Amino acid sequence: MIRNRLEKLRTWMREQPGGEVGAFIVPSNDPHFSEYVAAHWGCRAWISGFDGSAGTAVVTTEGRAALWTDSRYFLQAEEQLAGTGIELQRMGIEGTPTIARWLAEGVVAEGGRRVGIDGRLFSRAAFEAMSGELAEVGFELVPTEDPFAEIWADRPALPHARAFLLEEAYSGEATADKLRRIRSAQPTGAVRLVAVLDEIAWALNVRGGDIAYNPVVVGYLAIESERAVLFVDPAKFGAEDRERLRREAGVEMRPYEEFVEYLRRELGGKTVMVGSEGLDVYHWGLLSQTGARIRKEATPYGVISAMKAVKNATEIDGFRRAMEVDGVALVRFERWLEGVVAAGRRPTELEAAARLHAFREAAGGAEFRGESFETIAGYGDHGAIVHYEATPESDRAIGTDGFLLIDSGGQYRYGTTDITRTYHFGTPTTEQRRDYTAVLRGMIDLCAARFPAGTRGAQLDVLARRYLWDEGRNYLHGTGHGVGHFLCVHEGPQSIRMNENPVVLQPGMVQSCEPGVYVAGRYGIRIENLTLVTAEGCPEGFLRFEPLTLCPISLAAVDVELLTADQREWLNDYHAEVYARLAPRLEADDERAWLRERTRPVE
Amino acid sequence: MIRNRLEKLRTWMREQPGGEVGAFIVPSNDPHFSEYVAAHWGCRAWISGFDGSAGTAVVTTEGRAALWTDSRYFLQAEEQLAGTGIELQRMGIEGTPTIARWLAEGVVAEGGRRVGIDGRLFSRAAFEAMSGELAEVGFELVPTEDPFAEIWADRPALPHARAFLLEEAYSGEATADKLRRIRSAQPTGAVRLVAVLDEIAWALNVRGGDIAYNPVVVGYLAIESERAVLFVDPAKFGAEDRERLRREAGVEMRPYEEFVEYLRRELGGKTVMVGSEGLDVYHWGLLSQTGARIRKEATPYGVISAMKAVKNATEIDGFRRAMEVDGVALVRFERWLEGVVAAGRRPTELEAAARLHAFREAAGGAEFRGESFETIAGYGDHGAIVHYEATPESDRAIGTDGFLLIDSGGQYRYGTTDITRTYHFGTPTTEQRRDYTAVLRGMIDLCAARFPAGTRGAQLDVLARRYLWDEGRNYLHGTGHGVGHFLCVHEGPQSIRMNENPVVLQPGMVQSCEPGVYVAGRYGIRIENLTLVTAEGCPEGFLRFEPLTLCPISLAAVDVELLTADQREWLNDYHAEVYARLAPRLEADDERAWLRERTRPVE
Repeated sequence: MIRNRLEKLRTWMREQPGGEVGAFIVPSNDPHFSEYVAAHWGCRAWISGFDGSAGTAVVTTEGRAALWTDSRYFLQAEEQLAGTGIELQRMGIEGTPTIARWLAEGVVAEGGRRVGIDGRLFSRAAFEAMSGELAEVGFELVPTEDPFAEIWADRPALPHARAFLLEEAYSGEATADKLRRIRSAQPTGAVRLVAVLDEIAWALNVRGGDIAYNPVVVGYLAIESERAVLFVDPAKFGAEDRERLRREAGVEMRPYEEFVEYLRRELGGKTVMVGSEGLDVYHWGLLSQTGARIRKEATPYGVISAMKAVKNATEIDGFRRAMEVDGVALVRFERWLEGVVAAGRRPTELEAAARLHAFREAAGGAEFRGESFETIAGYGDHGAIVHYEATPESDRAIGTDGFLLIDSGGQYRYGTTDITRTYHFGTPTTEQRRDYTAVLRGMIDLCAARFPAGTRGAQLDVLARRYLWDEGRNYLHGTGHGVGHFLCVHEGPQSIRMNENPVVLQPGMVQSCEPGVYVAGRYGIRIENLTLVTAEGCPEGFLRFEPLTLCPISLAAVDVELLTADQREWLNDYHAEVYARLAPRLEADDERAWLRERTRPVE
Repeated sequence: MIRNRLEKLRTWMREQPGGEVGAFIVPSNDPHFSEYVAAHWGCRAWISGFDGSAGTAVVTTEGRAALWTDSRYFLQAEEQLAGTGIELQRMGIEGTPTIARWLAEGVVAEGGRRVGIDGRLFSRAAFEAMSGELAEVGFELVPTEDPFAEIWADRPALPHARAFLLEEAYSGEATADKLRRIRSAQPTGAVRLVAVLDEIAWALNVRGGDIAYNPVVVGYLAIESERAVLFVDPAKFGAEDRERLRREAGVEMRPYEEFVEYLRRELGGKTVMVGSEGLDVYHWGLLSQTGARIRKEATPYGVISAMKAVKNATEIDGFRRAMEVDGVALVRFERWLEGVVAAGRRPTELEAAARLHAFREAAGGAEFRGESFETIAGYGDHGAIVHYEATPESDRAIGTDGFLLIDSGGQYRYGTTDITRTYHFGTPTTEQRRDYTAVLRGMIDLCAARFPAGTRGAQLDVLARRYLWDEGRNYLHGTGHGVGHFLCVHEGPQSIRMNENPVVLQPGMVQSCEPGVYVAGRYGIRIENLTLVTAEGCPEGFLRFEPLTLCPISLAAVDVELLTADQREWLNDYHAEVYARLAPRLEADDERAWLRERTRPVE
């Protein structure tokens, strides 16, 4: 089946109007640079058979094809590519060529030195980087039409989930006010084009269900001086919402497909603001032919991203409420799980995930809008697979020897959660206690940090890693990512990681703190809270993290002797807060007694 | 006097062949971008009267003049500029304009929008940055001839100190081998131009005395495929050294002034390697007119800087030896000082610095080559002035109430030292103990860090600052700088500071670790050791710092209760090492007994 699809693509490549393209690159994103994509844009999965979230396929007319993915997916890709003839290129492994290197090593014929892409799937920045790499080895990168529009016969339609307006009681800022703020950051008379879906959702206070886990609506937004135009399937909105957006914020709706015509006909001579990572090459190319004066954003991530990252008081209150509801669900979940394990039953990873979902649903009611990402529930050695997703084939019974790592989150209409706890229902070994304690100490040190205004995440990252580094260990994922307000669970522009990122941490930013340690074939440990950057309680010019997540941190594997006095104090204060905030929401006395025991001070 | 000089410069500016330059910028560096400059290049001090190490003067034909300097020098500049008519621009203070802003605010006439500089004093990178800023406000930056060659009648001659070869027993690598390594990093047939003095000194294994504290020789170096040409006053070298350099390493000498002719006549059509911060605009301009193909270094700091930063085994042995000799001097110094203070005498800061010099001279003998920078000896509130230099006017008697901060270093033929210790000869207050302990804890945490290969200094910097940040305090200088081997005490490319610097810490690098805290008007505390990056004793892929500096860290103001078990262990291990290495070099039993007491374990 895959071989057939590859041949269809090769035929299409040979018949290109400008002449054959010798190779074609298929990335995994959609035209809006989403982390998760709708089925309509699952082209890389369709052409290769590999359906992991990250990977790039390259197909040549000479009969070769390869797929690049990272260590999270080596095993899955091996299995899914078996028999397709597609070579697996393991990123990050010594000796793995880049796409340019691989092409240069002779996998295409001399006449085929044009490399095709669907320009809609490459940002300007990504296009320029890839073009440069290819040019160095004598290849040319050529935007083409979308081959999958022709060769993918039963391609799923564009998503068409219902969309709705997020009331100001949840968003904390009227759409008209947000548009006013955005306009004040652009030259008078300029038009700002927005392709990134969570930026559109934030700016217009709209939410939808077009993409799994991310409550966004597929569309493009043009913010003009006097009005804004949302290119979207208007049928997604109720008539009343459409009218309200028009009346209250001057937002008109036009069909998604008309964005191209808008670019072609209505922007000539205008100043157009666009982030270099915010618009794809195809649309950028159309725009540049209209005589529009394209102005790149001063920062690669753009002003909407910066505004969105700093939460207002209503959003922060919503996060706090989400944490209380989520905390109740997690308390009930842990109590249930430890009860059934103690009773000798062995629930599986998938059963645990399903029960956790049910607890969240019960706690959140109608305002619970589903998970914020697919739950990771890994027992034993599965915990060492950083992005493990249990399947019926891999599903494992939860016992008393290993750690159970659960990383999960909920979307509530008032906020988004993301939490990891690592449980042990038996007697941890010395090694397990040592590792769990090292992760906990790092998590506490980072969460307890105070830092001057102007500090970047990369400056603080070491606080979470140092106890692991002391033992010659590390984790290769970031320590912290931004979190959207009832939006994407991973958002920028700030981060806390080893790599430099010039974005400074500002009051109102919400991000995760999630160090971990992974012992391949044995176990994984990760502890994650979300935090809010705040100046409250700090001396002039200083900031700190306020814990947002409310859920006991399992003490089962803590070696209290290794905690410093400051770390004990943080842990005890945190647990006191968890108890104070969650206990009133628990109904039964035995639940409260359980929580009191789990939030007991350590000495 | 200053007003006269300013008028001379203005006359010269009006008479420029290309037309009047309305403003002229005088920076503080020399054409080799040295931190310290020879008297010949003291143009900024001569024109303004301000003789601090950092400052930029700008003079306009319309009668205005201003000087930009940083907070270290506000007081000194105020005093020295009084009566000159030169305005003081306080960098880093809200509201202080940049040079471009100041010029744009109308201090020059409409016809004077050309801004002159001596192109020899601006690197290409600095020129481009300044040009860009000026262009934004409608000014043009114009390289001119050096006005001070005309208007400074009694300008000091170029320095002409004796130079000498550093034997391989000290350098650890023959000049011919270094040149071979450098050539292997450039295209075949290419010529590398080197203007930075410590790079020349390192590459050729030469040392000299042209610049205070930095044992370098003023010159330019051209490394061709088959030979190298050193443009230098040949009289600085003995005939035998000249002959050895020629015979053993193919290095010819030509007069310093001939560098210009060499650029003009001998590089046409050749590929020329030059760092963007490594050659001034004047020479760069000449070069670009010859038809040479200028290739910038891949890194802004260049390959020689990178090679120089990684010390070889001989250099590391030399550093260790220097630390032992320096440690003996410091032990004797502290013992002397505390004795005289205890006896009720009150030596002054200058007397202390002079005695420290004498102890170093006695310990190092003929191989002691002077200080590596001007000793900072600040008692009481003087310690809060980060770059305090005692003068006969400011000189203060050392008592028993305050801290005495001494930051000093020696140049030995086998290595360079840089050490800060903060002493208290009475009973420290609670506040003094709290602050001293916070600085010590940060210094220990950074020195004790283990980190994966690939780590940058900015990632580790927080370890030294966090205990201060916890109290809402900070220090605004870097935590660590690279240190040359019998070369500049401040060298790149690595650093440990809040700002991002992409250079990773590599085994063999030597750098300082020097957190501090400064309470204006009260006291300053800084504790500084030099460290070596090493993989020894680390798991695969990890690195650590080995302490190089050997000198007791005063325990007088340590609140031992606040130290973690790990911090106590580091301190005790360090002191045990100090005793073991220094005791055999002490002659008298009472010195050894004193040292044993000062390196006693804390519990």
